[in-house]
Amino acid sequence: MTTQEQLNQWQELAQQLRIDSIRATTVAGSGHPTSSMSSADLMAVLLSKYLHYDFDHPDNPNNDRFILSKGHAAPLLYSMYKAAGVISDQELLSLRQLGSRLEGHPTPVFPWVDVATGSLGQGLPIGVGVALAGKYLDQLPYNIWVLLGDSETAEGSIWEAFDHASHYSLDNLIAIIDVNRLGQRGQTELGWNTQAYANRAKAFGWQAIEIDGHNLTEIDQAFSAAVAVNDRPTVIIAKTKKGKGVKTLEDIGGWHGKALKAEQEQQAIAELGGERHITIAVDKPESQSQPAVLGVPQPLQLPTYKKDQKVATRRAYGDALLALGTSQPDVIVLDAEVSNSTYAEDFAEAFPERYFEMYIAEQQMIAAAVGLQVRKYKPFASTFAAFLTRAYDFVRMAAVSRANIKLVGSHAGVSIGQDGASQMGLEDLAAFRAVWNSTVLYPSDANQTAKLVAQMSDAYGKQSDRTGIVYLRTTRESTPVIYSSEEIFPIGGSKTLHRSHEDQATVIGAGITLHEALKAYERLKNEGIKVRVIDAYSVKPIDVQTLRQAAKDTNGNLIVVEDHWLEGGLGDAVLDAFAGNSSTHPYKGSQLQIIKLAVRDMPTSGTPEELLHAAKIDADAIVETVKLQVRQLVGVS
Amino acid sequence: MTTQEQLNQWQELAQQLRIDSIRATTVAGSGHPTSSMSSADLMAVLLSKYLHYDFDHPDNPNNDRFILSKGHAAPLLYSMYKAAGVISDQELLSLRQLGSRLEGHPTPVFPWVDVATGSLGQGLPIGVGVALAGKYLDQLPYNIWVLLGDSETAEGSIWEAFDHASHYSLDNLIAIIDVNRLGQRGQTELGWNTQAYANRAKAFGWQAIEIDGHNLTEIDQAFSAAVAVNDRPTVIIAKTKKGKGVKTLEDIGGWHGKALKAEQEQQAIAELGGERHITIAVDKPESQSQPAVLGVPQPLQLPTYKKDQKVATRRAYGDALLALGTSQPDVIVLDAEVSNSTYAEDFAEAFPERYFEMYIAEQQMIAAAVGLQVRKYKPFASTFAAFLTRAYDFVRMAAVSRANIKLVGSHAGVSIGQDGASQMGLEDLAAFRAVWNSTVLYPSDANQTAKLVAQMSDAYGKQSDRTGIVYLRTTRESTPVIYSSEEIFPIGGSKTLHRSHEDQATVIGAGITLHEALKAYERLKNEGIKVRVIDAYSVKPIDVQTLRQAAKDTNGNLIVVEDHWLEGGLGDAVLDAFAGNSSTHPYKGSQLQIIKLAVRDMPTSGTPEELLHAAKIDADAIVETVKLQVRQLVGVS
Repeated sequence: MTTQEQLNQWQELAQQLRIDSIRATTVAGSGHPTSSMSSADLMAVLLSKYLHYDFDHPDNPNNDRFILSKGHAAPLLYSMYKAAGVISDQELLSLRQLGSRLEGHPTPVFPWVDVATGSLGQGLPIGVGVALAGKYLDQLPYNIWVLLGDSETAEGSIWEAFDHASHYSLDNLIAIIDVNRLGQRGQTELGWNTQAYANRAKAFGWQAIEIDGHNLTEIDQAFSAAVAVNDRPTVIIAKTKKGKGVKTLEDIGGWHGKALKAEQEQQAIAELGGERHITIAVDKPESQSQPAVLGVPQPLQLPTYKKDQKVATRRAYGDALLALGTSQPDVIVLDAEVSNSTYAEDFAEAFPERYFEMYIAEQQMIAAAVGLQVRKYKPFASTFAAFLTRAYDFVRMAAVSRANIKLVGSHAGVSIGQDGASQMGLEDLAAFRAVWNSTVLYPSDANQTAKLVAQMSDAYGKQSDRTGIVYLRTTRESTPVIYSSEEIFPIGGSKTLHRSHEDQATVIGAGITLHEALKAYERLKNEGIKVRVIDAYSVKPIDVQTLRQAAKDTNGNLIVVEDHWLEGGLGDAVLDAFAGNSSTHPYKGSQLQIIKLAVRDMPTSGTPEELLHAAKIDADAIVETVKLQVRQLVGVS
Repeated sequence: MTTQEQLNQWQELAQQLRIDSIRATTVAGSGHPTSSMSSADLMAVLLSKYLHYDFDHPDNPNNDRFILSKGHAAPLLYSMYKAAGVISDQELLSLRQLGSRLEGHPTPVFPWVDVATGSLGQGLPIGVGVALAGKYLDQLPYNIWVLLGDSETAEGSIWEAFDHASHYSLDNLIAIIDVNRLGQRGQTELGWNTQAYANRAKAFGWQAIEIDGHNLTEIDQAFSAAVAVNDRPTVIIAKTKKGKGVKTLEDIGGWHGKALKAEQEQQAIAELGGERHITIAVDKPESQSQPAVLGVPQPLQLPTYKKDQKVATRRAYGDALLALGTSQPDVIVLDAEVSNSTYAEDFAEAFPERYFEMYIAEQQMIAAAVGLQVRKYKPFASTFAAFLTRAYDFVRMAAVSRANIKLVGSHAGVSIGQDGASQMGLEDLAAFRAVWNSTVLYPSDANQTAKLVAQMSDAYGKQSDRTGIVYLRTTRESTPVIYSSEEIFPIGGSKTLHRSHEDQATVIGAGITLHEALKAYERLKNEGIKVRVIDAYSVKPIDVQTLRQAAKDTNGNLIVVEDHWLEGGLGDAVLDAFAGNSSTHPYKGSQLQIIKLAVRDMPTSGTPEELLHAAKIDADAIVETVKLQVRQLVGVS
């Protein structure tokens, strides 16, 4: 039974959260006070009674986790931090200023923010990832609390999360939907029809509790019921008013994302009972347990392949992942129901407790990976390269979260053959290059794949750990092993497979096209034309030095060939190696003539060979282009 | 009441569809016979009794529409075409061969295929778009039938479709879920729990009917009930068996996406009762009505702006869209609940019957645009540039569908200011450049924006119609009008704003950075350094000729400055203008030194000016870079 005193304290705290949200946004001149105010009562009770969090030790594995899915309510979050005594009032008032930790939407520059939010519909699916870690990996009793806006439930990714949380019985996951009825531009789809939300959630297997989100007793009871349930996730559907507590704002349209002016601010603060100076001691977690031990690290024994054996790089990925999993108990694998194509299935069979099937829900898969790395696991997530485009916004936001995740796209390019264009990843290199702090790898043989997979996961010691988004592109078709298993392949490097003093041009390939380049080399050699052949397996960062040297050595004649659209892929990466930017000088050397061979027409079905030929990215096209270039038949433009 | 004779005919047809799906895939050596076989009974009844389609006139506006959301069941679709008498048995057996119309997954190379499928979870949301057209624009009584697999209901986009179809009371939309229990790699999440599907669908406001998908009478009754309902969409949840009818395949794992070998094929055909040669006359639509007339075309009166007035390009987009809507009654507008930020709201107010609010569901928004253009409307869809990444797979597939859609991303780049990184579109140019047959536009002033918006929609006559995906990037901040309203801005062109015989370098900008380039020009001129300034408003296609000439004229000194990540955007587009490809020769001229100024560190909150400066893409950075370059302080690498 809640005492009146408690209720009064919560009420006071809620008013402070409202006032501080208003104050911070008024000083900033922008931001979201009204979306903060609707959730203030919910957060006051959460912070005072239910959240168990050691603010001095954000890495305490027993901490509850709180994710502000409605990231635009950042002023509320920062006001909670002030109430918890971890930021000063002065810092609170630095909201949205250059250099402040208080950005317009939360980012992990704060030690208590695990993930960036602000692209709606992402907090709950990320919460699913953290909850998977808590229940199945850490095996610790912490809860994951996620505060959502009502508008964001229109995002399909929210329903992927509802689906997966139920499938995995995530009773440690508690979603709170702030149903304040008003979206950015008017009423939401469902308005205050909290029953419609509840019916949907129940149909997806959740406990659903409808409450008045400004009734502190109802909030208390709902949180109690959420914590008590032990077979399914809970969603609390809280009917609220945007701008609650201030008559000129409350449930009134046109106030989304608007700060109050100074006079309005003073009036609002007065109406809310004036400034408070409450600091509360947030409960620390009771449990002092350590995360479950998932295994004992062992020396890494990568698979090796004999030269000339034919092995698909996706097959080698599966083998290497299994080896990595054996060596590193913190490697966790996700796949979007194609594990028998990506070959994640071998890991899944060997380590079922560290494999999570994400079914055909790529957004949830990436979000789960982000959630898992919050708890310091090393997630590898795979599907067809084409289908990773489904989750591009999640990858973009993962970068803002400074998340360390490893993504693998199989079935890249026209060389997949008969399945046709819908299954061909032809934009993945462009998409992943344009992600902040990303690494993009594209191996051409099985030994190289294994070595790169190992580097994706810090196998060579902390110093070489790849942070950020690391993307590996694999090939469907079997290709000959060309490297010895002794070779090393540093990220940022390349391999020069043929080099002589008579090289008249340089052919740069990666993945499937490297094999076409090698075929072209032999044919050209037979015709007396020597070319340099470079394997650009590290697309980002690209090996600038080797490429510039090759240009100097081969009369500036460069041909890049890739199984990808003409834009944004390996060809553009090679061009970029010759440009300057704010930290690199442009190339200064011989006249450059770079020719990009890439896919330009919409592919169809056909055999891999037919399609490589039709796209003019096979050995025939390379031979022809080299001849044109070195014989100076390329005209002056 | 269904007669026994009808049932027998349907049964015979269903067996033929199964046999033909097997025959085609066996000849191809790959494909999906078993996923075709589970749906054969459903399709036999649909084709025989419920689908009203004039195969001779696929453009008949009264035609029902059929979308194979489970695109891998393409052999079934092609077998239906054979049964309908529109393709020969010989063509059927060309499945998956180079040059055949029968690709591994359906594409609109067939006149009867409206949209490509094969990326799961897209057929139903596209169906929502066609249904919106049918009910609210065409106002014709046709139905939209969508056949889904059960696995693809894990995609959030399916639930965006369930949500929107219900919100818009799309009683002309009928979804059929083939619940064959087996996904690619094992059992689906919900198995044969058809009730779980039904509960979810009902909670989203649909009529849901559970049936045995091999019971022809139940199928008939369900289709009848679906056609009869007139207040909501219907989903038929059909419990089926994968590989139905052949003992060695039926409900047996490991058969996904596998063709039968020749002996297996013969045995299966025998078990299915041997080859049939049934051709059926598919009913034509009864209605001979024409689509509703939405308005009378009028001459286009674009908004005009006075020089030096400060107008955001997003504001000009809203104005131009309103003008376009007034002129062209077939322009339809969609927005993802940010119409007051993108300024699509002015169109929405003027033409509410041609505006569809898509709420925060970007995937559904793009899918609806694809559906609307199936019915020859001209959809414009807008949201923040950052959030279009949410729908990248839908844009990718729209290109495979050869769809003509116009997309607008506002709030691009760090120049949005205080909201922070989550709201900044910094990868949109890279993403849209890497879309087949796309056009990418990025205006810098209001008059230019208006002229480009007009060209997006064929305002200058059929010859200049932009087909494919056309993307326009707009800016949040107000910027000075620099062009007269008389100027023209051809797609593929550029504007040279400053040019002299003494130009020592060329600065290329677009959008917000063009204004920084102009400021830099003035400052450099005061210091005695003349630079050429080019507005590259057409990012794809880029103005190769003007850029190459500028390089020749300005000692090869080029500086590209953009409010976008370093990879894949304007900088890479400019680099590409100097490369060759299979149809263009590389640049041959003076030594090139191209420097790319772009966003490299993760941005934070701050004022637009502060953030442009911090990213080193403002006038200061341009001035400094030009000086380094023209003074030859740029080192030899």
